[in-house]
Amino acid sequence: MMEIQHPYVLFLGDAADHLAAKTADGVARWRPDWCVGQLRLPGCRADTGLPDVELKTAYRDGARTLLVGVANRGGIISEEWLATLLQALDGGYDIACGLHNRLNHIPRLAERAAALGRRLFDVRHPEVELAVGNGKPRTGKRLLTVGTDCSSGKMFTALSIEREMKNRGMAADFRATGQTGILIAGGGICVDAVVADFIAGAVEWLTPATDDAHWDLIEGQGSLFHASYAGVSLGLLHGAQADALVMCHEPTRTHMRGLPDAALPGLAECIALNERCGRLTNAACRVVGISVNTAAFDDTGAERVLRGIEAETGLPTVDAYRQGAARLVDALP
Amino acid sequence: MMEIQHPYVLFLGDAADHLAAKTADGVARWRPDWCVGQLRLPGCRADTGLPDVELKTAYRDGARTLLVGVANRGGIISEEWLATLLQALDGGYDIACGLHNRLNHIPRLAERAAALGRRLFDVRHPEVELAVGNGKPRTGKRLLTVGTDCSSGKMFTALSIEREMKNRGMAADFRATGQTGILIAGGGICVDAVVADFIAGAVEWLTPATDDAHWDLIEGQGSLFHASYAGVSLGLLHGAQADALVMCHEPTRTHMRGLPDAALPGLAECIALNERCGRLTNAACRVVGISVNTAAFDDTGAERVLRGIEAETGLPTVDAYRQGAARLVDALP
Repeated sequence: MMEIQHPYVLFLGDAADHLAAKTADGVARWRPDWCVGQLRLPGCRADTGLPDVELKTAYRDGARTLLVGVANRGGIISEEWLATLLQALDGGYDIACGLHNRLNHIPRLAERAAALGRRLFDVRHPEVELAVGNGKPRTGKRLLTVGTDCSSGKMFTALSIEREMKNRGMAADFRATGQTGILIAGGGICVDAVVADFIAGAVEWLTPATDDAHWDLIEGQGSLFHASYAGVSLGLLHGAQADALVMCHEPTRTHMRGLPDAALPGLAECIALNERCGRLTNAACRVVGISVNTAAFDDTGAERVLRGIEAETGLPTVDAYRQGAARLVDALP
Repeated sequence: MMEIQHPYVLFLGDAADHLAAKTADGVARWRPDWCVGQLRLPGCRADTGLPDVELKTAYRDGARTLLVGVANRGGIISEEWLATLLQALDGGYDIACGLHNRLNHIPRLAERAAALGRRLFDVRHPEVELAVGNGKPRTGKRLLTVGTDCSSGKMFTALSIEREMKNRGMAADFRATGQTGILIAGGGICVDAVVADFIAGAVEWLTPATDDAHWDLIEGQGSLFHASYAGVSLGLLHGAQADALVMCHEPTRTHMRGLPDAALPGLAECIALNERCGRLTNAACRVVGISVNTAAFDDTGAERVLRGIEAETGLPTVDAYRQGAARLVDALP
């Protein structure tokens, strides 16, 4: 991971919507100084706000790695992207990708990269030898962001809390559990890509015992209420052994992401189940606050949504990205 | 999977206790006619009850595959076993193994097998291309065995229910989710060995839509209360979309298997959490009965334990292996 050269060009492919490009979007927001621009194919419906660039000119501007910053459901590398990826290799780029399917398993890419001396980074695929989780108490403090659904702001919230803590001079580190987070943090492990038996163990490995005053701010994944991914969320919750949870929520979602017939859980229900399950490995585990993605609202609308949820749950409720995470940090044990 | 030749010799290695050899034990109990005998190293504390055999004589008696029927915690193939495995290849055997670590990844084994034309079956490693779970309702009926802990009788209970249903002329199939079950069923998928994102999807693949009157009897894994493996258990529960759960319990267990400091959950708590989570993908999901492993008790003691749990839970409580599963089948919706 640490060898991936920046600056990056962010490849958005033919992303069906903006959420599909959330990897590119996250890198653009949290590491704008590492990004020369974005590269989009016809039909792309995502936009990071970075300038659209071409491979050749971006290379002259310093870019050295093409980041595949877009996800299809299921993690397939589409045939439409292949021509661009081959051009990038020809043009001097390494490629980094966070999908399930591996660049290294596509013969035309692997052969071209080998012939040209380029590198293909499949950041979703952990290379570390993992052990199963043991649930034993360990020193240091840990916060985990959890959610009512996928793509509800768990990574942004953890990064916002890290920023706030560092501004206060606290010892804190963002711990990445997904491909975007890894590209932002420079390390981490994709917990949804490990062998299922090792989910909790992977999180224990990622967040080992540390100083009593140090906070690990762990990026959550999925939701205990998501029929596709809840197993990952539960293993993450147990492995995190969290002293504090922050519940992340996207209030305009009409159904669980990718599951048109599945309703979102209520916040109270979701808080209760996360606390109940989290207490298996840390009896003090509790939700200390709510982070709401209010991107769909103007300032007045956002305030109304946040006040409503705060009244409903009795917990400090902020949009950690929009407003900063000060109230969440104030609420920590 | 279907190509593994029997008869088998069951390799128990230097198993630390009988539970460590539960793969061998399960195959010996449910497919005794496929087994020539067992092979044990000095210090082995397990015994399937089959005759101890040597590789050469067992081969003359028809054995064609050495089954590695023993598990270390974490799934390591130990150095102590390697000499025996190499002898087996030399003696004409294929080898089948259900551990995380692969026979095919041990160069000395892989090279010897290739040189001799023998096959190494790593049954834990699914070769099927999986999709993420979708949680959509599907036809057919499904029963999942769940547990208070690992190794609490989930496979035996599912197999006992299959036997009872087939005796009644019902349409039913055991669906294997672990290595022993796969060796017994002749197919299946190790859900704890799939990439974490695909746990629920693997179970949907294993138990597709079928006739309305047909029962899939799905082997559960782990426990929602096991700090190492609960993620697998939750994904399995969601993917199974079970109409009925049977709770499996080992009443003499003093702590969660492998976790000396972790207490077992109460039965009521465990039933409640499984039903609560199971209802995410099947609103009718409920625990219909309890299956208790009473192997540690004489008949009188077993009766007392079963009556006590039945009074406590209000649910039909049997030892499905010892007594048969008739009362559980009677309790189905």
